[in-house]
Amino acid sequence: MKLRQLGEDQLLDQLLARLPVSKSVIARAGDDCAVVKRPGGRNFLVLKTDCIVEGVHFTPEANALEVGWKAMMRPLSDFAATSALPQFALITLIASKETEDRWVNKLYRGLGKAAARFKVNIVGGETSSTLGPVVISISVVGFVEKDRWVSRRGGKVGDDLFVTGTLGGAIKRKHLQFVPRIAESRWLTKNFSIHAMMDLSDGLGVDLPRLARASKVGFTIQMESLPLNRGVKINDAISEGEDYELLFAISPRDSARLQKGWRKKFPKRPLRRIGCLNPQSAIRNPQLKGGYVHFQ
Amino acid sequence: MKLRQLGEDQLLDQLLARLPVSKSVIARAGDDCAVVKRPGGRNFLVLKTDCIVEGVHFTPEANALEVGWKAMMRPLSDFAATSALPQFALITLIASKETEDRWVNKLYRGLGKAAARFKVNIVGGETSSTLGPVVISISVVGFVEKDRWVSRRGGKVGDDLFVTGTLGGAIKRKHLQFVPRIAESRWLTKNFSIHAMMDLSDGLGVDLPRLARASKVGFTIQMESLPLNRGVKINDAISEGEDYELLFAISPRDSARLQKGWRKKFPKRPLRRIGCLNPQSAIRNPQLKGGYVHFQ
Repeated sequence: MKLRQLGEDQLLDQLLARLPVSKSVIARAGDDCAVVKRPGGRNFLVLKTDCIVEGVHFTPEANALEVGWKAMMRPLSDFAATSALPQFALITLIASKETEDRWVNKLYRGLGKAAARFKVNIVGGETSSTLGPVVISISVVGFVEKDRWVSRRGGKVGDDLFVTGTLGGAIKRKHLQFVPRIAESRWLTKNFSIHAMMDLSDGLGVDLPRLARASKVGFTIQMESLPLNRGVKINDAISEGEDYELLFAISPRDSARLQKGWRKKFPKRPLRRIGCLNPQSAIRNPQLKGGYVHFQ
Repeated sequence: MKLRQLGEDQLLDQLLARLPVSKSVIARAGDDCAVVKRPGGRNFLVLKTDCIVEGVHFTPEANALEVGWKAMMRPLSDFAATSALPQFALITLIASKETEDRWVNKLYRGLGKAAARFKVNIVGGETSSTLGPVVISISVVGFVEKDRWVSRRGGKVGDDLFVTGTLGGAIKRKHLQFVPRIAESRWLTKNFSIHAMMDLSDGLGVDLPRLARASKVGFTIQMESLPLNRGVKINDAISEGEDYELLFAISPRDSARLQKGWRKKFPKRPLRRIGCLNPQSAIRNPQLKGGYVHFQ
């Protein structure tokens, strides 16, 4: 079978499931970051790797500064999803010998600017030549307090679902300029019990079913509540992806206090209740593309 | 300027030098691994990333099991150089949609087998499609005790230089099947003060000058002492690379005890004194290709 006949999730799940891990591994494939405990450590260690490929994630004409920014911010958005603090990054650059050093310098300026935004130290890296497209792979290590770690798995029936920011139209510019919601995520877990969380990278229509599946529950969305960017149609906002906003589940008992506190702390950033988690039987939401996925 | 006009070392040094890091970063580019300290931590955190590219590091016809083995063992060899213990690995696979899942499954079997050899947990990863050659990028995180960390920088004038195993001819088979010298390295730092160490990946002719430069000293080699594999000529052993043996510097006062203890602990693995570190003025060794590099 060719890889194109297998989804990315399915492939990784299959491959990693066969590899044994020790009890120190708390989360790996299926969550935004890997989370591990270390003997004697007060905090969990958090690891994430991500890559972008020329022709797939960016065009050859893209501004190298923005490409670097995006390459670094994508894994940092997974740290936001986990409510973890990123600390150290490794950069792998695979480029043709014909690549201009000016382009590479701009790329690293973008990488450095993005890392500095969240006090991440770029501590090492690797370069290799290739006959193919440019690849930038970033690995980030950081930590999260044991009582503040959030996965996709803890959503409960009855939880309210919230989304930060606005959705849709990211492909025009935002996907090269977004700021991961780390500050927001850290505020959330400092002040509330967040049951489940993830970042919206592939679009609500794909990502929400993932969260529901990981939590073994269903969901209902009020389509008219979705926080859309100007000029964006609902279906596009659901399916386009690259929003890098947070989707999370919280007890409805906390909803009012959450909304009040949020408005005070992040007055310029919308926070919208978009629906709730349901028993598994209520999973089918005919309006939400992606809501059809099969649950175990 | 095109990248081919810049060496890899020079490029990475340039790019990383411009990015500021905090005081918690003890080693980054220029050493085999990045080494960082964490508040309250008893040990240093150790990070390394490495990648292999189809057509550069392996041929399309190579056995996927061996490709996986090599991809994992390369960064683990850098852990050996640092005398660190690897713990967690992230795998990024970039492959065309036309790649056979059988090939990928074999690759992961090789990765898993190599990781298991050193009790490394594969905790996550990432896949992406590409229109170009297959890329496998591995990031590894582990630790080293503060008093056992070894860099390339601590070599002293008068130190004896030792090499483990035998050199040359690795390209025939060994480069796909080697075992990083982690056990040997851990034994060395448990029992001796190792001043400087690295793994021989690019050949003694390139790697030894790097160690000398990092230690701000020169070197002399007894060419007739080099431990060669059968049928290998001295110049080839120096320049071919991919040996993944250890090169280290130790006080001559410890040499006799080292050699006696080593024979007892690793009776089947040669350990050879190949020369010593000299004052910088004695740097030029006309027989050693690579000995001509410019020192600051």
